[in-house]
Amino acid sequence: MCDFDFGPLEAAYDYDAIKAAISRDILRSRKRRMWRYRELLPIDGEPTIGTQVGFTPLVRADRLAKKLGVRTLWIKNDTVNYPTLSFKDRVVSVALNRAKELGFTTVACASTGNLANSVAANAASAGLKSYVLIPADLEQGKVLGSLVYGTNVIGIHGAYDQVNRLCSEIAGKYGWGFVNVNLRPYYAEGSKTMGFEICDQLDWRIPRHTVVPMASGSLLTKIHKSYNELIKVGIVDSTPFSVHGAQATGCAPISHAMKRGTDIVKPVPKPETIVKSLAIGTPADGYYAIHAMRDTGGSCEDASDAEVVEGIQWLAEYAGIFAETAGGVTVASAKKLIESGKIPHDEEVVLCITGHGLKTQEAVVGKCGEPRLIKPSLREFEEQIYAKDTAAA
Amino acid sequence: MCDFDFGPLEAAYDYDAIKAAISRDILRSRKRRMWRYRELLPIDGEPTIGTQVGFTPLVRADRLAKKLGVRTLWIKNDTVNYPTLSFKDRVVSVALNRAKELGFTTVACASTGNLANSVAANAASAGLKSYVLIPADLEQGKVLGSLVYGTNVIGIHGAYDQVNRLCSEIAGKYGWGFVNVNLRPYYAEGSKTMGFEICDQLDWRIPRHTVVPMASGSLLTKIHKSYNELIKVGIVDSTPFSVHGAQATGCAPISHAMKRGTDIVKPVPKPETIVKSLAIGTPADGYYAIHAMRDTGGSCEDASDAEVVEGIQWLAEYAGIFAETAGGVTVASAKKLIESGKIPHDEEVVLCITGHGLKTQEAVVGKCGEPRLIKPSLREFEEQIYAKDTAAA
Ligand SMILES: Cc1ncc(COP(=O)(O)O)c(C=O)c1O
Ligand SMILES: Cc1ncc(COP(=O)(O)O)c(C=O)c1O
Repeated sequence: MCDFDFGPLEAAYDYDAIKAAISRDILRSRKRRMWRYRELLPIDGEPTIGTQVGFTPLVRADRLAKKLGVRTLWIKNDTVNYPTLSFKDRVVSVALNRAKELGFTTVACASTGNLANSVAANAASAGLKSYVLIPADLEQGKVLGSLVYGTNVIGIHGAYDQVNRLCSEIAGKYGWGFVNVNLRPYYAEGSKTMGFEICDQLDWRIPRHTVVPMASGSLLTKIHKSYNELIKVGIVDSTPFSVHGAQATGCAPISHAMKRGTDIVKPVPKPETIVKSLAIGTPADGYYAIHAMRDTGGSCEDASDAEVVEGIQWLAEYAGIFAETAGGVTVASAKKLIESGKIPHDEEVVLCITGHGLKTQEAVVGKCGEPRLIKPSLREFEEQIYAKDTAAA
Repeated sequence: MCDFDFGPLEAAYDYDAIKAAISRDILRSRKRRMWRYRELLPIDGEPTIGTQVGFTPLVRADRLAKKLGVRTLWIKNDTVNYPTLSFKDRVVSVALNRAKELGFTTVACASTGNLANSVAANAASAGLKSYVLIPADLEQGKVLGSLVYGTNVIGIHGAYDQVNRLCSEIAGKYGWGFVNVNLRPYYAEGSKTMGFEICDQLDWRIPRHTVVPMASGSLLTKIHKSYNELIKVGIVDSTPFSVHGAQATGCAPISHAMKRGTDIVKPVPKPETIVKSLAIGTPADGYYAIHAMRDTGGSCEDASDAEVVEGIQWLAEYAGIFAETAGGVTVASAKKLIESGKIPHDEEVVLCITGHGLKTQEAVVGKCGEPRLIKPSLREFEEQIYAKDTAAA
């Protein structure tokens, strides 16, 4: 049993001291990893886990911008995050470094898939024992993407909320380090690095609009916090910015509360969506996410399964990026926000694309056409492919 | 029809001029992308395609080093390369920039899967039309990972060599830019960046041993070239190094020639291996690969399907990295090279891990165990998971 006192729920920073200690030049002199901003992260020593995480590309996507009808569009592309292809590598890195500092030898999580992948991989490379608890019906890529690391994968017959409740009970009993239960304050702070990097990659300024997919609402809340922190420590100017949220219609408790004009989030007992990674019916940080959106003049949208698939396809066809279902949610919701004028046509927007499409192949397989099959013969190619395509063009 | 003269088969560089023009400091002052070494790449202007490619992590893997019985082990991790999770993004970036400079509007390739993914994605973001030709029996992740970008996927009933031959015929006729046929000299040079980055990340030195997976043998040949070029232009010292090759036993024409002590590569008419990405029976650069290995005191090994699966698992369980079958080949072959003393226990080795495991899930699904399924109940967890695991421990 571990008797560590987990302390306050929010990490506390001395912003004045940090302001005196860092500058743009100092930050830029450091490695292009999420640890560049370590003064604003809750770890004591040098990180030893996840040292290579972060600094994923911020990609300007002009063809997609045109398609969506917005002046300037950037993709913050965490589909290629190291090592497990989602933004969860950021939160897990912070949590596991802290877990190591606190002396945990078994780490664990409740997950909709990506978190499990990241805990499993990072625990494996660090030589920690791990348990990942997931709803039993996740996609093959998410399940295999945990099993392969030799972790203990426990599939729960039930929705994520039930998985999460079970993990709270286990965490209280065995003294395991659950990254998103008893280590959650450290975990959550890791998400800020996505916002820090966006500003850094825009040459130290905050983008006018940011669209963020939401499950528990933690990532959105922390991107909001990251922008405010960079202002506080004097690294960026205080310019107007709006943070917008995106959910799947089949599990949109935060979006629905926003649309009703309330901050009381009504749980969704039975999520029904192909977007399993965002299917959290009782979002722990929903209240904070709503206030972050409101305080910045942001809005919220949600996308049906069909719109999610179209969002994945547009991102692939116009920006060359293959995202998982959560990415489809973000693109499809951004489309609606632009159409409704909540993101004006002549402004700039960053889309947070948080996980890779190879993890959720089920969502698009059979919906992007099939290969055309021919024999290895020039004649077949000419008759069945070239002639038809040139006639059609 | 394009009547461009493709010129000499090898790109020509003025190494003396380059030596005078670059230094470690100059290189280090540039972005951490493959274009950092642009003087040693065959493009004329500034790159506009694939600007974010490269500079994947070089990860020190101490737990895997111990397992394999070698002093120091590094993983050059192209499983997280941007945008399509394999080293092919390097070669495609060079080829497509050149294709654009030369005025091609349709680009194409013959591929065992990864190349198709990269051509499709990069063409999509650049707004080029594309055709990718692949053997009809590739893995779902490879096929979907092309289709999603809206490219034309042509599945050929036959082995890769037949696909390749067909592409040579098509390239001659329609004036399309086939990245690995008529644009091959440019394409091939892109692989050098993997070697440049390894030296850069080792603080400007050549690793003693490098293990490289081989299909056509191009990547190995170009990594060898990259080390020699860095010596020539005065960026690294000339220290002894060996380049070793790795193939799948079911399609190992280069490895078998090496073991027979000849540089005459006997074609494999019918590859039989789960490692589809390396299944090239008539390797275009086999001869050069053999000489690169011989000239550096390197060796070659090959791995059976079962050894490949174990290689994937070791890399995941001991280094937290999930690679495709080609990665399994590299780890399993390195194991043999270390066991036989061809890579001495007390030396240092870099493994080139070239593609992500989510692309070839078929290879490991069902072989890494299954989730244990329970109801969301603490009692079930205690009885069926915790009690059993603690009894077993
Ligand atoms: C791909 C992806 N994007 C976004 C999120 C949202 O995370 P949060 O719970 O911080 O809102 C998740 C959560 O699992 C996710 O997997
Ligand atoms: C994952 C992977 N690794 C290595 C190779 C080897 O490439 P080369 O043909 O340059 O030997 C390939 C070729 O397709 C590949 O897909």
